[in-house]
This record gives sequence, structure tokens and C-alpha cells, in this order.
Amino acid sequence: MVEFKFEVKARDAAGRIGKLEVNGKKIETPAIMPVINPKQLIVTPKELKEMGFGIIITNSYIIYKTPELREKALEVGIHRLLDYDGIIEVDSGSFQLMRYGGVDVTNREIVEFQERIGVDIGTFLDIPTPPDAPREKAEEDLRITLERAKEAEEIKGIAMNAAVQGSTYPDLRTYAARKLSEMNFEIHPIGAVVPLMESYRYRDLVDVVIASKQGLRSDRPVHLFGAGHPMIFALAVAMGIDLFDSASYALYAKDDRYLTSEGTKHLSELEYFPCSCPVCSRYTPRELREMPKEERTRLLALHNLWVIREELNRVKQAIKEGELWRLVDERARSHPKLYAAYKRLLEYQDYLEKNEPITKASAFFKVSEESLKWPIVQRAKARAERVKAKFPETINHPIFGEIPKYLSLSYPFAQSEGEEDFTIEKPGKREVRNYVMAVAEYQFGEGAGEAFKDAFVELSRKTGMPRQIKAKGKHLATFRAEDGLLTLGIEGAKRLHEILPFPRMRVVVDEDAEPFARKGKNVFAKFVIDADENIRPYDEVLIVNRNDELLATGQTLLNGRELKLFQSGLAVKVRRGVEK
Amino acid sequence: MVEFKFEVKARDAAGRIGKLEVNGKKIETPAIMPVINPKQLIVTPKELKEMGFGIIITNSYIIYKTPELREKALEVGIHRLLDYDGIIEVDSGSFQLMRYGGVDVTNREIVEFQERIGVDIGTFLDIPTPPDAPREKAEEDLRITLERAKEAEEIKGIAMNAAVQGSTYPDLRTYAARKLSEMNFEIHPIGAVVPLMESYRYRDLVDVVIASKQGLRSDRPVHLFGAGHPMIFALAVAMGIDLFDSASYALYAKDDRYLTSEGTKHLSELEYFPCSCPVCSRYTPRELREMPKEERTRLLALHNLWVIREELNRVKQAIKEGELWRLVDERARSHPKLYAAYKRLLEYQDYLEKNEPITKASAFFKVSEESLKWPIVQRAKARAERVKAKFPETINHPIFGEIPKYLSLSYPFAQSEGEEDFTIEKPGKREVRNYVMAVAEYQFGEGAGEAFKDAFVELSRKTGMPRQIKAKGKHLATFRAEDGLLTLGIEGAKRLHEILPFPRMRVVVDEDAEPFARKGKNVFAKFVIDADENIRPYDEVLIVNRNDELLATGQTLLNGRELKLFQSGLAVKVRRGVEK
Repeated sequence: MVEFKFEVKARDAAGRIGKLEVNGKKIETPAIMPVINPKQLIVTPKELKEMGFGIIITNSYIIYKTPELREKALEVGIHRLLDYDGIIEVDSGSFQLMRYGGVDVTNREIVEFQERIGVDIGTFLDIPTPPDAPREKAEEDLRITLERAKEAEEIKGIAMNAAVQGSTYPDLRTYAARKLSEMNFEIHPIGAVVPLMESYRYRDLVDVVIASKQGLRSDRPVHLFGAGHPMIFALAVAMGIDLFDSASYALYAKDDRYLTSEGTKHLSELEYFPCSCPVCSRYTPRELREMPKEERTRLLALHNLWVIREELNRVKQAIKEGELWRLVDERARSHPKLYAAYKRLLEYQDYLEKNEPITKASAFFKVSEESLKWPIVQRAKARAERVKAKFPETINHPIFGEIPKYLSLSYPFAQSEGEEDFTIEKPGKREVRNYVMAVAEYQFGEGAGEAFKDAFVELSRKTGMPRQIKAKGKHLATFRAEDGLLTLGIEGAKRLHEILPFPRMRVVVDEDAEPFARKGKNVFAKFVIDADENIRPYDEVLIVNRNDELLATGQTLLNGRELKLFQSGLAVKVRRGVEK
Repeated sequence: MVEFKFEVKARDAAGRIGKLEVNGKKIETPAIMPVINPKQLIVTPKELKEMGFGIIITNSYIIYKTPELREKALEVGIHRLLDYDGIIEVDSGSFQLMRYGGVDVTNREIVEFQERIGVDIGTFLDIPTPPDAPREKAEEDLRITLERAKEAEEIKGIAMNAAVQGSTYPDLRTYAARKLSEMNFEIHPIGAVVPLMESYRYRDLVDVVIASKQGLRSDRPVHLFGAGHPMIFALAVAMGIDLFDSASYALYAKDDRYLTSEGTKHLSELEYFPCSCPVCSRYTPRELREMPKEERTRLLALHNLWVIREELNRVKQAIKEGELWRLVDERARSHPKLYAAYKRLLEYQDYLEKNEPITKASAFFKVSEESLKWPIVQRAKARAERVKAKFPETINHPIFGEIPKYLSLSYPFAQSEGEEDFTIEKPGKREVRNYVMAVAEYQFGEGAGEAFKDAFVELSRKTGMPRQIKAKGKHLATFRAEDGLLTLGIEGAKRLHEILPFPRMRVVVDEDAEPFARKGKNVFAKFVIDADENIRPYDEVLIVNRNDELLATGQTLLNGRELKLFQSGLAVKVRRGVEK
């Protein structure tokens, strides 16, 4: 029985902060696994753990092929071999296959060996087809990879990677992703992308990643194999990447190369360290240059690790604050090819929109021409167009153009900042119901405004903004001060449940969850059996049973597709239950 | 006699790395002076020195008004009072004047006091007029400021600040800057801009700074008074700011605010530290939150100082690499108002173009729509248009559009990277002279191509690119591999000297410098008596004497105006002299 769990804790863009648990060991994602060369440790696994790296990756093929390592690994296990008590993932030799054209082990042998030495996450011997390979080769390689996947699936006793291959053919990537998603694997790396990154083909990388993500189950973590440069973390995470690995921290260090979040510098060209890490706050570039090679390499490797850790922290903090797109936009100014990749990513509106949260902790910031293409803007404009049909009175917003007047208090219209300031007009008493109805149409879809047609809306004495929404003495909903969207009360939920036909806004839970939901307890993913695919992250939803009886209302962390797939973690933060 | 020197060491955009020397103490600019409250030291001046802060600022008015401080300062001097052996600058009470409406000291008193306590850089009691003040008030305040400047100029015995005021009236700022530039001062702060920064009015800040810079002598360092947030360093330095000061590192810390290069965070909203400084690499946000107030404040102040230091390092490194505009572009994505300021700055093409280097260590990177408005691009396009008149054959460049074919090897056309790759075609043997002539027209101006009309151009066997340019067995110039521009040999210089009428490309030096220049020694700024105002930084120039006799050729660090003004440091790196 494989002990493996992955759940989502927070999200922004198509990225997520997750919790990954394997064999009782937990890490938070997005995470990076430093690559360990068991034959040459520049920084020891133990030191890595102390720096906060809870997962490392090494190569099971090298261990397998090196008699003394192999013997020791079989005797004491890989954790004692490497003196590391975190999560150990291993590659299979696929990298050697790509680089040197062949390996000296079978798929079955390496998978069995991985289990015998006690790795936490294994990798079967997939075939990495490099970019721009002939179509026939990509197809044939993929056929073999899928066969090996089948074999690995049958014999594996540990958590295992199943890498998506397919060269630069998006349809093959999506096909591979679909096939592997149907099988019993835990993590999906996206393979053979190193040549794209080495030649700065980030735009092609976006195509490969999105094609893969579109075929993959969204409840499994995705690893961008071989990606470890901090300059692409923000972009990659925004696409939905959860795991990275880095050999570069050490390889670059050997070559006197110094990582930054904006690119790579050679030590010889640095007059100043643009960093405050324990290495850079203590030494000058000149001092480092004058050091003996070995000491210098170690210090550069440490710097590289610190900057990697720092950028991942920055990305995670951006997710928490709902400003990952802003960070991606900023990083896109590091290199023209990254800028091209960013623009390319923004063309995948359908994919992005499905994953984009409905609301965020931070205001929308117009920081570029491109920021007007962020999915939150596209969605807001599209939904505003729909609302206009019912509420044609518009105002001119400096960022969003003509928008329905009654949406002017709501996210992202009011919670936005551009070059020009935008003054929010407080609603008049007579019109305030229109605001609520328009927001309901905007937030819950066509027809939802009806639920509030007889509502009475209290205005806050302090701010003049709508607050509690009632009808016939009953509480329907709250107009949130933070984002001008609605939080449903039970009466409001009941009305929406009546008006909106199944499956709109529904999250269907099984019998086990019903009593808990009714008591207002949170709904966990494993109890969800169906959901409206149009639900978006942080939507207010209706929780119902198989008979579409309303059980509760709350805010979902997952979108509609994810609600159906995820088996771990929270699904809906329930606000109120409907007692029987 | 005031001991004060300022010289330029390297430059990019309108920014510069400089060396400032006062009373034998040296610092490199751009630099920031942490503000010291002598009544409350969160971080001691000694610790600041150890972190690399070679200049601090404190308030002479507070010392003057606090009997025990005043007495001690008069007795042992300000350096021993503060236990700091770096450069100490003091403010005068002008800040108190702006904040509280009045001060209890006269201009003469405070200036004399500053000298008596041994400050390195003083400030007279100028009147800071806040933004948007009535025109009459701004004018009246400025009249008093200029009177006080006159008084200070007469009595001062130390290096002294003369702050440019004029509220948000660009013409007043330029006027004040001109008047103060005519007087005998060492540094020019731009005053009363804190309210603009506090309300994110960065676009107005750009107008104020550029209006001031346009009136100021370019050989004096400029201090943006009250600016200490790392998010604006890149933009401010690109405008030509050399000095900053920061009280915020401590004030923010007291309020649990955490600086980043992209904005300010409150400690309570941080789940991850986007930083690797000695504080952030050691503690988590939660750990800091749980500390006693005093310890937390100190650690946050230290973090704030580290991140300030780091961003200044980043800016200086960017200047060295010629990629300051890229960094400004990146930082513009931190906040919509910073984006607006960046776009505003790019409207000042005339000011920017005069300061923009002719060549850079890094390729031009197209990383945004705005990057097409960088002065290097505008200049390249304008000069290419001019060259087209003589060499009408064009090629289509993915970034620059239709450019003369014969400029396609030269900076920035060949040394550029955009979304699409651009293949450089090697010149054919028959056409190669056209390349040289076109580049001469591009680099040295109309008519310069004539100097090479009979040239023979060697092609590098290795790269196929033009290298040495000769005529009649003599070396005229070298076609530089790095940037496809010309380095003049003596014969080439002689020919250009003959063709181009005075003062084109000339740097005129006095008698003392003549023998040194002829021997190929570098020309220092104090020997320059005149120069062509159309010279740009890093241009190849003709060094001549008063009779316009050619003495040498070399590469200038300064532009035409600066050549006439600077009295310290290198002016022209001489490549070859003309022996008599």
C-alpha cells in the first residue's frame, strides 16, 4: 500500500500551495528537490535539510551501476546511504538515456531496485524524446513509455513518477498525460524539457507544459523535470507546476556561475552581489574570486541554493496574497524569451480561466499592457458583458472600460489600481438592490439576480456600502466589504438552489458527509461525488446530497473538475449548514 | 577650504556610479545614508559602518535643541558623539519646518553650528514647499531659500547641501536648480518630495526630479531627500539620482513593516520571507511575530537595511552591465503608480538621450512594449534614418524595423534580443567598405563616412566579420567585435578631424594636458576646457588643443556638457596620442 497524499492549501493563477505527504514525511509545494550526486557531495543532504529542503532527488541508476553504492544502499537503505531523513525521490536513468543514448538496466530491474533500497518516490524507465524529434520517433518512444508505465504500475510498491513525454507535439503530450492519468501513479513529471530551457525556448516550454497539464489529473502534483532556475519559478508555478529539481546549484557553482531570480551571472562579471544571503552578506565578489576553487564552489553552491529557496518563498507569498500574476509579469522582464513565454501563456485563456480564483486578497494591479490579459480581467469583462444585458446602465472605468454601474463596487472593478485613480460612488438607497442583483448575476450566473428581487439591503453607517441583505426578516446574504461579492446565508442559498437548475453551483457529497455538512462542518474532498464544472476556486457554492437536497453553503477551494477528482484535503469551507 | 570631490566611474541610462570624497573619506555612489536619530539608536552607527554604510545622516537641529547632545557635540564633535568614523551629513531642521510649520533657529546659527560640531556635509535652512502649494507661496518660499543659500554660501566652511525647492512647479524647480548651480555648493538635494512618495505620486516625482536635474550642474551629486524605499532606487538612479537617505528602515520596523524591492509588507501578512538576509535566513515570519517588540523591531530594521543595501548593489551591478533600463522596467511591475512613473520618464527623451551611453556591455533586451521607447532604441532609429539617406538598402529587423543593411552588424541592431531570433548576415567582401562607411556616419555623424571611402577592410578569418580598417598601408580604425562600432586609429582620427568641422567630436584640453595626451595618457576632467555638446558617453572623440590641433583619440566617459563641467576624475580614456 503506497502512502501518498497531495492536497491544495491555497492557490493563485493556475498555481497552488500544496501539501505532499509520502511515508509519513510532509513537504509544502511548490518545492524544489536539490539533485544529489552520491559520488560528489558539495553540500551534504543533511545541510540541505537544515536549509529547509525537505525533499531531494538522486539517480537510482548511478547507485545501481556503482558497486560500492549499490551494496551499501541494499544493506542500509538509501536514507542512511545519503544520511538524509527527508523525502528521497530518484530518477531512473532516463536522463542518461536521453544524454548518452542507452542504459544498462531494464525497466523492471530499476523499479524493483528502487523499492528495495527504500526510496520514497521512484521513477520508471520512461523514454525522454528530445524537442523537435521526428513525429514517428516521438510516437514510438511514447508507445514504449506507456508500455513501461503499464509494467511499472503492476509491480510498483512505492509512490512513483510517471513522466509525460511526447517531444514538442502538444497533442502527443496531452495524449500521454491522459493515458498516464488513467493509471495508478502519484506524480507526473513533464519530461525532456531541459533542452528547451537550455536554449531559452521558454515559449515552446509553455506549449509543452500546458498541453501536458490539460491532459493530466489535476489532483496529482506535477514536476517540471530538470527545471531549477529561479528565473522561471513564477511562470512555471503560474502554469500549475508543483515540483522542481535543481542540479544547477552545484553544476553552475563549479563553473563559477551565480544564480539570480533574473538570470545567471558569471562570477567574473559581478562587481556587486545583488543578494543578502549568508554568503553574499559576508563576502564580496572579489573575495570569492580569490578563494581556492573548492571553497569558492561550495560557497557559490550555497548562494545558489539560498536564491532558489528565496524565489520559491517569493512565489508562495505571492500565491497567498493573490499576486502571482504580478510576479510573473515582473519576472518576464528578465529576458526577451521569458517575455515571449509570458505572452504565450496568456493565450491559453480557457485553461487559465478554469483555475483562476474568483477573488483575491490583493487588488488588481495594472502594471503592464499584458496585465490587461490576465484571466481575472478577461473573466470580469466577459461576465460584465453578460450582466449588461440586464443592467444596461454603465460607467466608464479607467481600466475595464464601460462596465455596469451596479458592478462598480465589486472585485476586480473596485479593487483595482491603474495609472489613473478611480473614485467609487456610493450606492443610493433606491438603487442598492440593483447592485445586489447585478452582483448575483455576475457571481452566480444568469438568473441568479432573481433571488434578491425583493431584498432589503442595509447600508453600513460607517462606509455607506451595502452590508446585510435580507428579505421578509430573513438573512439572505452578506455583501462583503473586502471584494463587493456575496457570501450566502442559508435563506439566500435556498433561493438560489430553487432558481438555478442542477448542477449549477452544486457540490454533491455522499451520505457520510451529509450530517457533518448540515452541522456546518467543512466538506473534505474525498466525500465529494459530483460538482458543477463551472465552479471556480473560492466560489460560494451550494452543497447538496445525491437527491439535490441543500445541505449547506460555503466557499470552495477547488474548481468544479478538481472537486470531482481530489481525494485529500479540504474541498469546501462550509459557512452554514441546513439542519434537517 | 572645503575638501570635496565627486567623479563618475561608470554609467547607464542617466544614472552613474560615482566616487564621492569629503574630508578624506570616500564612498561610492549611488549610496544611501541611514537616518540616525541621536536620541534612539535601533542600530548603532558603528554597526551600520560594518554593514557597508559609509555615510549616515542625522539632524543638526535636534542636536542643537537638545542641551546634552549639543554640549557633547560641541565638546567632542559629531563623529565621537555618534561613534562613527564615516561621512556624516546633517539636515538643518527644514524637515521640521515642513512638518511642524516652524523652527527655533536661524539659518546662520544652524550653518555655523554644523561647522562647529564638525559635520562633513551640512545643510542650510531651506524652505521645503510641499506639493501643490499655491504658486505665490512656492515662489515666496523659494525667494527666501535663495536668500538663505546666499547667506550660507558666504559663511560656510564645510561641504554643503543646497536643496532644490519649488513644489510641483517644474519651471520653479528648474529655476531654483539653475540659481543654486551658479553658487558654490557641493551637493544638491531635491527637497519636499516625501509627500509625493507617501501618496505614491511617482509620476509627479518624475516631473519634479527631471525638472530639477535639467537645471542642475551635472558635476554635482544629487540627493533625493527622504527617499529610501528600495522599490524606487532603480527608477531614481536612472533619472540621475546619486544619494538617498532612509529613516524608513527604522520607522517601518517599529510599525512591523518589512521592506522589499517590490513594496512594503506588514509582518502579519507574511507567511514566507522573500529574502535570504542574515535575519530572514535564520527566522520565519512566525518566529519574528512571536518575539518581544524590541528584539523584533531591531531584527526588522536590520532586514530593512539589508534589502536596501541589496537593491543598491543590484542597481550598481546593472549600471556596470548596461542593463539599468531592464531593471527599471522590471521594477515598474511592482505597482501601477511606478509603472505610470516609468512611462512618464520615457517621455523625457531629450534629457535621457544626452546621458545615454553610445554602447553597452549587454545586448539590448526587448522585454516589454515600453522597452521600445528606451533612449538607446530611439537614438538608434533616428540615426538609422539619417544613414538611410546615404545607404538606402535596408533589411527588416524584427525589433527595429527597416534599417540600413550596412548597420546590421552594429549596436544595438546586432546586439539585441527579442521574441524572434535575428540572423546576422556576414558582409560580402565587395560590400564591406559600405559597412564601415555607414557605421562611421551612424557613429560620428553626417559626412564621417567620407573618411573611409578608400578603406580596405580585413575580414576576420574566424568569424567572417570586419576587423582592421586600413588605407594606403595605414591603420584607420578597428571594427569592434563586441558592438560593431569603430575604434579610431590615429590615421582615422586625422581624417575625421579634417572632414568634420570644429567643434564636432572635439574635446579641447588646455596646455598642461597637451604633452600627456600626445603621449597617449588619459585626459582628466579638470584639463578639459571645451567640448562638442553632441558628444555622448562612451563616444570615440578627438582630443585637440585650443588651436584645434589633434592631440589624441580616445573614448570619453562623459558627455559633451559634462566634459565642460567636471573638475574631478577621468574624462577621456585615451587610446592613442599624436606625437609632435
